[in-house]
Amino acid sequence: MSGVEIYLIEHYDEALEDLKAFCRIPSVSTDPAFREGILEAAKFVAHRLKKAGFINVELLDTGGHPAVYGEVISDPSLPTILVYGHYDVQPPDPLDKWLTPPFEPTIRNDRLYARGVSDDKGPLLIPILVVEAYLKTEGSLPVNLKILIEGEEESGSPHFETTLERNRGRLASDLVVSADGAMWRPDRPSMTVASRGMAALDVTLNGAAKDLHSGRHGGSAPNPIRALTKLLASLHDADGRVSVPGFLESAKPLDRAILTAIDAADFDAYAYYRDIGSPKPDPIENGSQLLVRQWLEPTLEFNGIFGGYQGPGTKTVIPSSASVKITCRLVAGQKPNQVIEAITRYLETNLPAGYSLQIERHGPGSEAFSVDPDLPGLLAAEDVLSELLGGKPLRVAMGATIPIGTAFRKHLGAEAIFFSFSTSDEDYHAPNEFLRLSNFRIGLLAWARLLGRLADHPKLEHADR
Amino acid sequence: MSGVEIYLIEHYDEALEDLKAFCRIPSVSTDPAFREGILEAAKFVAHRLKKAGFINVELLDTGGHPAVYGEVISDPSLPTILVYGHYDVQPPDPLDKWLTPPFEPTIRNDRLYARGVSDDKGPLLIPILVVEAYLKTEGSLPVNLKILIEGEEESGSPHFETTLERNRGRLASDLVVSADGAMWRPDRPSMTVASRGMAALDVTLNGAAKDLHSGRHGGSAPNPIRALTKLLASLHDADGRVSVPGFLESAKPLDRAILTAIDAADFDAYAYYRDIGSPKPDPIENGSQLLVRQWLEPTLEFNGIFGGYQGPGTKTVIPSSASVKITCRLVAGQKPNQVIEAITRYLETNLPAGYSLQIERHGPGSEAFSVDPDLPGLLAAEDVLSELLGGKPLRVAMGATIPIGTAFRKHLGAEAIFFSFSTSDEDYHAPNEFLRLSNFRIGLLAWARLLGRLADHPKLEHADR
Repeated sequence: MSGVEIYLIEHYDEALEDLKAFCRIPSVSTDPAFREGILEAAKFVAHRLKKAGFINVELLDTGGHPAVYGEVISDPSLPTILVYGHYDVQPPDPLDKWLTPPFEPTIRNDRLYARGVSDDKGPLLIPILVVEAYLKTEGSLPVNLKILIEGEEESGSPHFETTLERNRGRLASDLVVSADGAMWRPDRPSMTVASRGMAALDVTLNGAAKDLHSGRHGGSAPNPIRALTKLLASLHDADGRVSVPGFLESAKPLDRAILTAIDAADFDAYAYYRDIGSPKPDPIENGSQLLVRQWLEPTLEFNGIFGGYQGPGTKTVIPSSASVKITCRLVAGQKPNQVIEAITRYLETNLPAGYSLQIERHGPGSEAFSVDPDLPGLLAAEDVLSELLGGKPLRVAMGATIPIGTAFRKHLGAEAIFFSFSTSDEDYHAPNEFLRLSNFRIGLLAWARLLGRLADHPKLEHADR
Repeated sequence: MSGVEIYLIEHYDEALEDLKAFCRIPSVSTDPAFREGILEAAKFVAHRLKKAGFINVELLDTGGHPAVYGEVISDPSLPTILVYGHYDVQPPDPLDKWLTPPFEPTIRNDRLYARGVSDDKGPLLIPILVVEAYLKTEGSLPVNLKILIEGEEESGSPHFETTLERNRGRLASDLVVSADGAMWRPDRPSMTVASRGMAALDVTLNGAAKDLHSGRHGGSAPNPIRALTKLLASLHDADGRVSVPGFLESAKPLDRAILTAIDAADFDAYAYYRDIGSPKPDPIENGSQLLVRQWLEPTLEFNGIFGGYQGPGTKTVIPSSASVKITCRLVAGQKPNQVIEAITRYLETNLPAGYSLQIERHGPGSEAFSVDPDLPGLLAAEDVLSELLGGKPLRVAMGATIPIGTAFRKHLGAEAIFFSFSTSDEDYHAPNEFLRLSNFRIGLLAWARLLGRLADHPKLEHADR
């Protein structure tokens, strides 16, 4: 075991305190009420980078929430790694379902519970602690390392691409290693080599100019809930697949390599539905079908719906509006703009008389992503996991979206791998989010070894350097 | 003009202050958070009855919110009138749409704005003030008068029938005059002779045991919003009529007399949609069709829908449940139990695999009601309105529900008429509820004259007296 690894083990308690302090900051990016928490979290990251020994630490103005940058340049002849993470978190509601408050980190059964601990505060803190360990013990890193921690990932990263574009020179690197991502299953080491894209929009239907009495006006007044449910009900077929015309335009055929991995995964559909606590829906017959749906088929999910009275008892009202929040997961080939346009066109065409329609789009969206299967950085990461966890990790896709892959390729010409120590069952968009502390500890050792191996990573030619 | 009427005119300013004080009490019956307001309002009514000269004033224990009772017995040989009203009000939300706070009564343009002022605090205060005027000026009433003011009308009156049943002796009367009801239009005096019934229920669909990440689980996990919208979309046909099998069981054919009144009303559908601020929906072609929908056809209205994330921005979650609040308006012949059973059966039969269903019913519901067209009390009331407002009032039906008609007939053997001075456009289930003060003033005179005319009302034989 190297001096770096010994240092990390000896300083684990301090690392845990750092993580708790980070998790106490309510850095919800989607809700303006949390603006202060966002700024506090950005400053926390900058402070922690400086303390670890990073230089040129800076809050980058993005036009939205700031991104945090820092670097440790050891030797221009060494490869340059750009580490990515995000300090913003999902909203914590519904608050009443948390066993302990979302911003009061609490350990139970070697798990740390807090909003954002798994996505992405724990995983992003790991490389910072590893850099600190290298600098304290060896005085330098085996690679040049830059780090970019954004604050709008949970809002769809609306300013991320322009930030990359504006900072191309400073961010130039040979490989991006994302601390965001999540391992697929707690019982099976994996590397994520593909992810779905995303497009997000809110749809509001307006009826009368104000809420009306449902007795006096019932039968004659437009009811936006009725019209909205009729419209929404026509967006999927009986099997739950999106049936909006044009939605699948440009989608590529299913990826054969991922289909092969799915068959190798031998996934248990019944165990999945037992885990999430619902009976198996009819259209999904087995584990392979289920993974195809999760990894390789696009979705149009209703994330929230609201309109009218929601309190106890009865309020006999016909509401003046009803809304739904939608996110779509996209597969290879689908363009966010095309998808949003297809949905908009469909809703406009099918809007019944008596209603008006408002569509609000959130962010530019992102296309699906996949990693080059022969990428040296991917192979290095797999070797590290094999050493530490035993056995070659499974290459998997993920249903969730990591838009950064495409963005780094486009703006920096650099490929990205996902090297995260969160696990996808850690409730990171739900109440009682947690991080397995065993994975936090393994992550520290794994990143230490990965930086060592990446010393031999081939260098790109960077015009901007 | 009688001494009673002069007294009412001279004491109008005090009457208005009484009404404002009453409206300051937040007596929302559907929400337990307002329990104190409910009790305060009941005590306000009891106090005001005593001050007016009522005796045997009492808060009746109903099993729910108390009802308030009082009486003025002049002479056992005179007919006995039972006055009905309710002191509870609708919830005030959405609060941000009120120009002035709902429980801070404010006059603008000779209208008093406050939650409950039109439904039913203003209208119910009128007969109390009239009784006081009689007792102050003449020392007695031309009839025996009992009053029953309930506190659960906006919650579907769940304990009203048992309260009537338990107090049959005390409440025995020859005619019920309801201060609740509302005139149909501000420009046309009317008597309401029929109303729709009601049945209320909440429907919740549950999917997974907890909220899930819409990226990781999208495509495989059940989405209760998707399933709920599919189910709800199948409850109405393309013309907006309820298509649930069994829903119309036992419904009687359309009432010919009301159809005749509808043709006489010459109702302007385009003006209606201009007033409520929405374009005309396709299925409704003219004013007569519109009134048939409002008065004579049953509805199944969605009063509220909710599930998942409702905040700003995006939350990529698949919620564990989604709910809808439903009230149905029933026509003659429909039974609330049959209607609820038909809906429940339909939802259970059509529930897709992967979901569970919860149905919560609110109150017993009520059947549709109609007044005997030759009822002497109805004719007396029409005469009073003709005198005061000029021209015979139109006999109209109403889409809203006044369950008391059927209840008084069933438990007391007494017929009821509606003699209210609220108007149905006064936003009484919406923000900025108001009462036209001109109608408050006319109502005082009208009730004074009505009591005089009812001195000749035929007496029923009451076994319990």
